[in-house]
Amino acid sequence: MEELKRTEIGSIGEFGLIDKIAAGAMIQHQTTLKGIGDDAAVIGTTAGKVMLVSTDMLLEGIHFDLSYMPLVHLGYKAVTVNVSDIAAMNGIPKQITVSLGLSNRMSVEAVEAIYEGIYAAAKDYKLDVIGGDTTASRAGLMISMTIIGEASEDQVVYRSGAKNSDILCVTGDVGSAYMGLQILEREKEVFKVDPNMQPQLDKYAAIVGRQLRPMARMDVIYELMDLNMVPTAMIDISDGLASEIFHLCKQSQLGACIYEDKLPISEQTFETAAEFSMDPNTAALNGGEDYELLFTIRQEDFEKIEHHHDITTIGYMHPPESGKVMVTTNKTTVALTAQGWIHF
Amino acid sequence: MEELKRTEIGSIGEFGLIDKIAAGAMIQHQTTLKGIGDDAAVIGTTAGKVMLVSTDMLLEGIHFDLSYMPLVHLGYKAVTVNVSDIAAMNGIPKQITVSLGLSNRMSVEAVEAIYEGIYAAAKDYKLDVIGGDTTASRAGLMISMTIIGEASEDQVVYRSGAKNSDILCVTGDVGSAYMGLQILEREKEVFKVDPNMQPQLDKYAAIVGRQLRPMARMDVIYELMDLNMVPTAMIDISDGLASEIFHLCKQSQLGACIYEDKLPISEQTFETAAEFSMDPNTAALNGGEDYELLFTIRQEDFEKIEHHHDITTIGYMHPPESGKVMVTTNKTTVALTAQGWIHF
Repeated sequence: MEELKRTEIGSIGEFGLIDKIAAGAMIQHQTTLKGIGDDAAVIGTTAGKVMLVSTDMLLEGIHFDLSYMPLVHLGYKAVTVNVSDIAAMNGIPKQITVSLGLSNRMSVEAVEAIYEGIYAAAKDYKLDVIGGDTTASRAGLMISMTIIGEASEDQVVYRSGAKNSDILCVTGDVGSAYMGLQILEREKEVFKVDPNMQPQLDKYAAIVGRQLRPMARMDVIYELMDLNMVPTAMIDISDGLASEIFHLCKQSQLGACIYEDKLPISEQTFETAAEFSMDPNTAALNGGEDYELLFTIRQEDFEKIEHHHDITTIGYMHPPESGKVMVTTNKTTVALTAQGWIHF
Repeated sequence: MEELKRTEIGSIGEFGLIDKIAAGAMIQHQTTLKGIGDDAAVIGTTAGKVMLVSTDMLLEGIHFDLSYMPLVHLGYKAVTVNVSDIAAMNGIPKQITVSLGLSNRMSVEAVEAIYEGIYAAAKDYKLDVIGGDTTASRAGLMISMTIIGEASEDQVVYRSGAKNSDILCVTGDVGSAYMGLQILEREKEVFKVDPNMQPQLDKYAAIVGRQLRPMARMDVIYELMDLNMVPTAMIDISDGLASEIFHLCKQSQLGACIYEDKLPISEQTFETAAEFSMDPNTAALNGGEDYELLFTIRQEDFEKIEHHHDITTIGYMHPPESGKVMVTTNKTTVALTAQGWIHF
């Protein structure tokens, strides 16, 4: 492996580091009147539009493990996590701020690698990096981002808007990021025992990719706009499908019924779950970090998405007293349980 | 001392904690269409106004020391640091997001204490807490906030707007927060040697207060608006007066001349510096965390603030080739040096 150059942050100082970072920022939106470089960024507003604001914090040892998460991917993924929240409101991401806490293990090159990922994501999602904060950290790496998006006021989609008999839809497939994580954890253990072992990841490329470099589903948001469709409620799947169904039900004051045999699970997720003697439906329902979208639509909109290759209808909303249930493959109705992710 | 109740965060869970926090949030602005509780907050926009966005991250062991920083004050101060950035753009703060990384030392009561300070500040500064993220941290406490403010597009004040011969003004006094920190550090050492010693802080109440619970100078921003005055350039003093003068000069492509005998230094700061055998001007020029405002005004605006009890004119801007200089008390002209705060 090529020896990477290592420049200590102390040798260029905080302002030197900020200058390096700022040099890579590219402004793509006319509404970004002032980006990095003053006490605050300045954003112009558009009549009839509202601003969406969301924030996420990622901490080393809690949300990511640098032993298998490349820094470029980490930067990209941190942006994705934030973009996904704007997508879930039916909005378009516009600007983002980036705050980094850096341990003294981190070199200037490491920070540049994180920013390489951040800027790549900013380009892909058409986002302007407008500011942030860079500070030393006594603990590990921490990344805190705040994203700003835009939406037409009458097209913002809340978690609370689902109506009785609306259809529940999921984009892409679920459980993949979770199974990818299991592979990465297993290879890490193998590596600990024998550091000469090369990780065998090719066979699992798709699910490992879903863990390391997920994409926010802005593509679906744009498609729904093209179809003139506004979901009645929406949420992104970060904590696991079941947990997100619970959120939609709670805020829309409804129950839900889903079908086990409708859960969108990829072949690789299915096979990997088998390899781990795990029920793939458990990964699909309770695995986190898919960053797919869960949304409800009116029955009359069904035909618009019926043949969409990447949207699956998994069930429907019903009265709250009917509960949150799943019809299993053998036609039994069981209560859904939301395990979610417990960090504490 | 009364024994405080201690509830483990694990016993109420992440969602339980979020519910507790959200219960204290109060919405004061009509433009806050949706606060805590969805994937993103929704903010309405106002014609002719721009949005200001700034973010700051505070880390235990780097930016604060919990051995003398009460959690309520810490929450308040974190908001102040952010409000100060909006003030420095001549804007009005409106919304804020709050992300907390919590070590397992932190109880539910500790988190509530931080939020007590945050909500008190939100009330004083008329800010809506619209969202955030709460996560476990393997290291110490971390606080990351992003503030959103509003300003008329033609009244935003940048660091870059100063013109030759503009007058340099400072609000309040400088160096106090730094001297307050010296007192707190000294009492901490005394306490280490003899834990039965009670800290003697009464005599230093004002400067210790400036360190523990500074106020952002929104009062001055409102007064300048009442006076129909828009500064030509402005920055808040977080890293030390000299360092901020350097920023204004760099971005406005000018030099500056200040007078040592004009530096606004409080009597308590002066006396405490003497006690530490320290030059009070060094504290004034290089001590950080004052959160006062440094701004430039046109000569013709001088009479509007000439008799203001809390604004001091300390010098003027001149051509870049004249440098960044200070005329000392004994009439010698010396080069200003910006030490600032180096965290790395």
